[in-house]
Amino acid sequence: MERLLAEEKVFKDPVHKSVYVQDELIWNLINSREFQRLRRIRQLGTSYLTFHGAEHSRFSHSLGVYEITRRIISQFERNAYKDWPREERLPALCAALLHDLGHGPFSHSIEAVFDTDHEDWTCRIIMGETEVNQILREVDEQFPARVAAIIKKQYDKPIVVNLVSSQMDADRMDYLLRDAYFTGVHYGTFDLERILRVLRPHQGRIVVKESGMHAVEDYLMSRYQMYWQIYFHPVTRSSEIILRHIFGRAKELYHNGYQFEWLPLPILKLFQGDLTTSDYFLLDEALAQTVFMAWSDERDEWLSDLCRRFLHRRLYKDVIVSDHNEALFEEAREQLRQAGLHPDYHLEVDFPFDLPYDVYRLDARSGKKDNEKPPILLLDSEGGLSEISARSDIIRSLTGLHQDKHRWYFPDDLLRPVAHRLDSRIRAIFGY
Amino acid sequence: MERLLAEEKVFKDPVHKSVYVQDELIWNLINSREFQRLRRIRQLGTSYLTFHGAEHSRFSHSLGVYEITRRIISQFERNAYKDWPREERLPALCAALLHDLGHGPFSHSIEAVFDTDHEDWTCRIIMGETEVNQILREVDEQFPARVAAIIKKQYDKPIVVNLVSSQMDADRMDYLLRDAYFTGVHYGTFDLERILRVLRPHQGRIVVKESGMHAVEDYLMSRYQMYWQIYFHPVTRSSEIILRHIFGRAKELYHNGYQFEWLPLPILKLFQGDLTTSDYFLLDEALAQTVFMAWSDERDEWLSDLCRRFLHRRLYKDVIVSDHNEALFEEAREQLRQAGLHPDYHLEVDFPFDLPYDVYRLDARSGKKDNEKPPILLLDSEGGLSEISARSDIIRSLTGLHQDKHRWYFPDDLLRPVAHRLDSRIRAIFGY
Amino acid sequence: MERLLAEEKVFKDPVHKSVYVQDELIWNLINSREFQRLRRIRQLGTSYLTFHGAEHSRFSHSLGVYEITRRIISQFERNAYKDWPREERLPALCAALLHDLGHGPFSHSIEAVFDTDHEDWTCRIIMGETEVNQILREVDEQFPARVAAIIKKQYDKPIVVNLVSSQMDADRMDYLLRDAYFTGVHYGTFDLERILRVLRPHQGRIVVKESGMHAVEDYLMSRYQMYWQIYFHPVTRSSEIILRHIFGRAKELYHNGYQFEWLPLPILKLFQGDLTTSDYFLLDEALAQTVFMAWSDERDEWLSDLCRRFLHRRLYKDVIVSDHNEALFEEAREQLRQAGLHPDYHLEVDFPFDLPYDVYRLDARSGKKDNEKPPILLLDSEGGLSEISARSDIIRSLTGLHQDKHRWYFPDDLLRPVAHRLDSRIRAIFGY
Amino acid sequence: MERLLAEEKVFKDPVHKSVYVQDELIWNLINSREFQRLRRIRQLGTSYLTFHGAEHSRFSHSLGVYEITRRIISQFERNAYKDWPREERLPALCAALLHDLGHGPFSHSIEAVFDTDHEDWTCRIIMGETEVNQILREVDEQFPARVAAIIKKQYDKPIVVNLVSSQMDADRMDYLLRDAYFTGVHYGTFDLERILRVLRPHQGRIVVKESGMHAVEDYLMSRYQMYWQIYFHPVTRSSEIILRHIFGRAKELYHNGYQFEWLPLPILKLFQGDLTTSDYFLLDEALAQTVFMAWSDERDEWLSDLCRRFLHRRLYKDVIVSDHNEALFEEAREQLRQAGLHPDYHLEVDFPFDLPYDVYRLDARSGKKDNEKPPILLLDSEGGLSEISARSDIIRSLTGLHQDKHRWYFPDDLLRPVAHRLDSRIRAIFGY
Repeated sequence: MERLLAEEKVFKDPVHKSVYVQDELIWNLINSREFQRLRRIRQLGTSYLTFHGAEHSRFSHSLGVYEITRRIISQFERNAYKDWPREERLPALCAALLHDLGHGPFSHSIEAVFDTDHEDWTCRIIMGETEVNQILREVDEQFPARVAAIIKKQYDKPIVVNLVSSQMDADRMDYLLRDAYFTGVHYGTFDLERILRVLRPHQGRIVVKESGMHAVEDYLMSRYQMYWQIYFHPVTRSSEIILRHIFGRAKELYHNGYQFEWLPLPILKLFQGDLTTSDYFLLDEALAQTVFMAWSDERDEWLSDLCRRFLHRRLYKDVIVSDHNEALFEEAREQLRQAGLHPDYHLEVDFPFDLPYDVYRLDARSGKKDNEKPPILLLDSEGGLSEISARSDIIRSLTGLHQDKHRWYFPDDLLRPVAHRLDSRIRAIFGY
Repeated sequence: MERLLAEEKVFKDPVHKSVYVQDELIWNLINSREFQRLRRIRQLGTSYLTFHGAEHSRFSHSLGVYEITRRIISQFERNAYKDWPREERLPALCAALLHDLGHGPFSHSIEAVFDTDHEDWTCRIIMGETEVNQILREVDEQFPARVAAIIKKQYDKPIVVNLVSSQMDADRMDYLLRDAYFTGVHYGTFDLERILRVLRPHQGRIVVKESGMHAVEDYLMSRYQMYWQIYFHPVTRSSEIILRHIFGRAKELYHNGYQFEWLPLPILKLFQGDLTTSDYFLLDEALAQTVFMAWSDERDEWLSDLCRRFLHRRLYKDVIVSDHNEALFEEAREQLRQAGLHPDYHLEVDFPFDLPYDVYRLDARSGKKDNEKPPILLLDSEGGLSEISARSDIIRSLTGLHQDKHRWYFPDDLLRPVAHRLDSRIRAIFGY
Repeated sequence: MERLLAEEKVFKDPVHKSVYVQDELIWNLINSREFQRLRRIRQLGTSYLTFHGAEHSRFSHSLGVYEITRRIISQFERNAYKDWPREERLPALCAALLHDLGHGPFSHSIEAVFDTDHEDWTCRIIMGETEVNQILREVDEQFPARVAAIIKKQYDKPIVVNLVSSQMDADRMDYLLRDAYFTGVHYGTFDLERILRVLRPHQGRIVVKESGMHAVEDYLMSRYQMYWQIYFHPVTRSSEIILRHIFGRAKELYHNGYQFEWLPLPILKLFQGDLTTSDYFLLDEALAQTVFMAWSDERDEWLSDLCRRFLHRRLYKDVIVSDHNEALFEEAREQLRQAGLHPDYHLEVDFPFDLPYDVYRLDARSGKKDNEKPPILLLDSEGGLSEISARSDIIRSLTGLHQDKHRWYFPDDLLRPVAHRLDSRIRAIFGY
Repeated sequence: MERLLAEEKVFKDPVHKSVYVQDELIWNLINSREFQRLRRIRQLGTSYLTFHGAEHSRFSHSLGVYEITRRIISQFERNAYKDWPREERLPALCAALLHDLGHGPFSHSIEAVFDTDHEDWTCRIIMGETEVNQILREVDEQFPARVAAIIKKQYDKPIVVNLVSSQMDADRMDYLLRDAYFTGVHYGTFDLERILRVLRPHQGRIVVKESGMHAVEDYLMSRYQMYWQIYFHPVTRSSEIILRHIFGRAKELYHNGYQFEWLPLPILKLFQGDLTTSDYFLLDEALAQTVFMAWSDERDEWLSDLCRRFLHRRLYKDVIVSDHNEALFEEAREQLRQAGLHPDYHLEVDFPFDLPYDVYRLDARSGKKDNEKPPILLLDSEGGLSEISARSDIIRSLTGLHQDKHRWYFPDDLLRPVAHRLDSRIRAIFGY
């Protein structure tokens, strides 16, 4: 089952120096068309508009997650830890490599507008009629389902799920380091080698040796800093808002019977909500950008304006609104409407929030208990376990919701000329 | 003329840490749609298929060239070197920023097939009806022409041309460092700060303080290593060959009256050879990749095969042919034809060569004298100048042509099944 | 007064890349014998016994503090901030450069045993008959006193004191980065360039632009991590305990009239408590290590044993004692005594504590209010100030005392053979 | 024989990130007093006077050489290369770790004056009555001799000698990277991981896979650059000259019956030429510096002057003398003598030379054939071997002697006041 390559393959990677592939299966998966497609999806969506270095793809991230997983497992095997189920090596590596396979272009925006889910798509691609599926089936007929189960966090061995998706998993470790490298900031750098050295398989899950507590603090702080400095950067949020509006406006137009000059099939199917796996394969960032370029000349002025803003980076401005509330926002919308702007497309409120470390296992959006995110446990020398935030002030300060002030986003160039038509209170908020 | 921004703008850059913008003019140029378009053109063309980190754009490189130029000039000004013409600051910065504006998607391949030239396009964009032109004209009516002259190396002050394009210019310094950073190799790193410190304006050109000789050796060795390790990597050459064949085949089909399922306007104009600046603006890598995706399903089997190879990274294999010659190659082509392959698209010979340092001022392709590449001069403490290769064995070893063996590229998957139809000598070359 | 060097001098520095000296005064101070002496004092005392890279001297740290101060002031000047008193540039730079001049070898241990204070010594050297004093007096007669006042934090312009010693001063910034670099850990790296960019002179002190809050969090977390991972590392504490015992035992012997085989003058004067500045100049780490080497063969078995331990790195072992209390410790001491060990030299308790950020301005040791450590203030866009821990959960988690468990340190090799003579409870604590 | 530690030990290392120790034998050797002594010997002698970061010790370098050797062997074992004799692992690791054990303080100067040899001392320590010898003998009685034979390059398996000392050995690889890291320059950084990946055991020696040629070029260029930028830096040469004069003057005084105020035993034995291993153990840099400090106050004015110069970094100035020859130099010496200076101590000529890559196997000093430095061989895919300089222009440019101009070193402060007494030609050389 575990056929090794005659000669180890090595990818040069700026973050991990080298990514090593020893298994024929992994090599074949990397060479599948579905995996190669990840080269055409940026890892950080629109962040390159804020940090110009952030042009790296999900392809390189996926290789990185695979490599970290490989190093962890190899360390478990080298030390012959008995709580690590050796037969799970290959499924774990496949899940690590493939976990982001279902990401589309600018996933966050598309998922928000079309109610799709990249994890579902990952599993559809793994289970569907694809090259990836065929390669996985060579192991055995059940193998694709096994890999999909790990990704859906429904696998019967939680330790494997833990490795690939938990509060300190290979996915997060890679993206923090990688996003830090490509944006050029330092906040995301933590000592990966040290973290790897303190992980232990223990009674069906991954825990951390007690002496690694400060290393985990360091990792969680990196995560916290990356969220606030990079992922939630107002310029990035602004471009995401515009993207969401592009898709929203186009969808609205489509459902109103508007005739587009050019509407390629995968986009049409997206509007209709019946994308197949092979349509999905065509839906990459090259297509999205080409569509936006075409739509820059559409007759609908809102759509074309939004597309031009995105392509030429003429983003919405943001202001902090300390006393934001629903009524105030509605009032502003109404005044914008009266001033000739489109309240749905020209005003947006945003307040990012993050749970850097979730001891209560709550889902950030729904507020419901989420058993998929077990807390990080410390293993002491006597074999006792303790939840990490009980031991560290630092980590305790990272539990619970961290949230930014409310910011309003709007097109300064459109609003400024008609600002005199807003009443003084609203005008003051916009800074006119 | 030199309007400063109220507050300095800072771009976070992974290579230079920060890029500083103080001039309103520079800020406006960066925000023009033509400059923002560079975000959609990869700096290293197809190299990302070899080094997955190499996904950075010409946008970030252009900012880098600007920043290095800014630092050099600022050092000249700080030290009040009298041979630096202070009034050239802004033209030099603009030329540095804009020098790559005319690059299209995968320029090398497109230029080879369609006989275009990115430098011409840069100047057309600077001089044409574009936002960039409008912004430059705000300085004065002649300003766009001045900037274009620097880029065309026809400016009346060679020292300014020197800064932006010579054998040790801001362009090369940035791309060596940047490409090294994003691919993750170390070969391209030299001590930029040291190099900047030993540059001197001297009698109308940029020279190097004598004590900087070893630093220049180090820089030229970086250049040499980057060429052989990165730019000439056989996998990259293979993907460039495929790209060239895609464009070549499509052009051939077009001129034979073939009807494409989809042929967007900028591509049609490219075939017809009458691209306008506004067509050119639409011609980015997103469009190219979208076209390749569409062409993967074209009826023409050669074209669709080539496009699928490129997108799914199923490249041509290479073999070293020590005794390559024209007759042998023709013989191989003929046998391929007889075996059912297409000799024009399925066999290619390649032998990269480079002049890491050109003391003789020869053009690598034409072999003719090229006055645009003056040698690097060392300035001794008495004000004497000497050509650097006369002083350094290392640099002397880098003069003259360095070239690789001949390699043949071919589709292993297509050739292997019919390899028995080749005669034994040719079969041996292909390794069957 | 501000005489500039004909040509800027540049020191190559691994942390800051380059250290630039423009003033003749600074250049002369660096070349004084008292400043050169800092090359013979390690920055991190005994930490090299834990982290073998940590062999850097106070000389390089002092240059680093100078360089950071220079960069801050140069930024203040470039932006022409009116709240920065320009005439304070040179005094501030001198204080930054010289602030550690009074450090002796292994200062912490010597200060603990002989009740000396390196800050006092710094000022004695600045004010005494030294080359440094002579150089400073060339500015004017009062200049040495001015520099000393800054270092003693009694200067009449608190903004200058702030720069050199506060909770986020050039001293701390340099040592965190430098110690991280030389030990090879990552915890201490924060974005210095970013921090420098958000500092503002404001109404007589240095504050932080509001947008720099996360950067300060990052800096304070680095500090926190460095303390727990590096400075408080049990192996380092163990070697410090041994050092303290060496000095303690030797002092005791001296006061008991013991005749040392070799007792060089500066050590004798240290015992007698009447060191002069010129004795102090001789007291460097080379002398200390040479004395320890000589004392390894002293007749007194405790002293020679301790010296051999230090030189050959045969340190005390540590155990965590969760239920440490005075009575228990006394009981252990008594049992050690009965087992033939020396309770004063063979058992030590230690519990490091740290105030990573001190909002309450308490002195860690005395618990008294310490006005020398004003809190870090954020400056908002309206000019309002707020104390940073009121704004950041992270920083709030860093206020107050952080302390380790109690650890007992003891010579395992001496105690183990006689462990059977301890009662079972005590024996269990030592792990026998 | 190969007893493993219960738990792997890890040293944090700034250059290799981590140094891993798995063998009890290695662990015990590191903890021996003779190996710990290397902490008191700087790796780069007096270079810290030029590059203040260069304060690292031979201890950290020795660990680094061990680690590189460990990685090479572990790669050989992982790939099960049949030409690697597995039983040589432990002897090779010991030789790598211990190869510098015999270095004294400022070895180059001491060896020049007292005609000692650090390699001899290494072997004397390994074979003598030392802790290291005792630990090695635990393997078997012949083991110390085996390790010494590797170090003396007289081992019967040249492949093991190759690993530890050749033109591309673990020793050089570590010192280039380490010295680059601590000085803060970039010249010495090459891609270690890449080099390690292309090394192959082949018919009794270590060769390089053909595809690694450019990586070797890169490594040799690093070596070349480090020699000229760091090791041969005139300021370092100047301090070495002073050191040599200190030892030379003191030796001369001793042999003339001069009574030193303080002459510790190891120095006396050094003068007498009958140092024992236990004397040698005491001879570290702490002692040397302490002696220099004491001698700063000696009655002999030349000796005290030289010591003060060294300690307070008041070095000799250098001038380039293009037309240096013996007669000219003698003339200058004579004029200095007449002007009241001491020709032996106040004038020195120096012209560093280096053989970056020695294809002819010549000894740089004697000019005789040196079989200990076999050339670097490339292994092609058919198993053929070729000498690397035959294949690479770059490396060919590095063969043969590279040498600097002649420089004269002298005490500017002493010579300047009497310069009027020199004749004009000599005066011009000194720049007066």
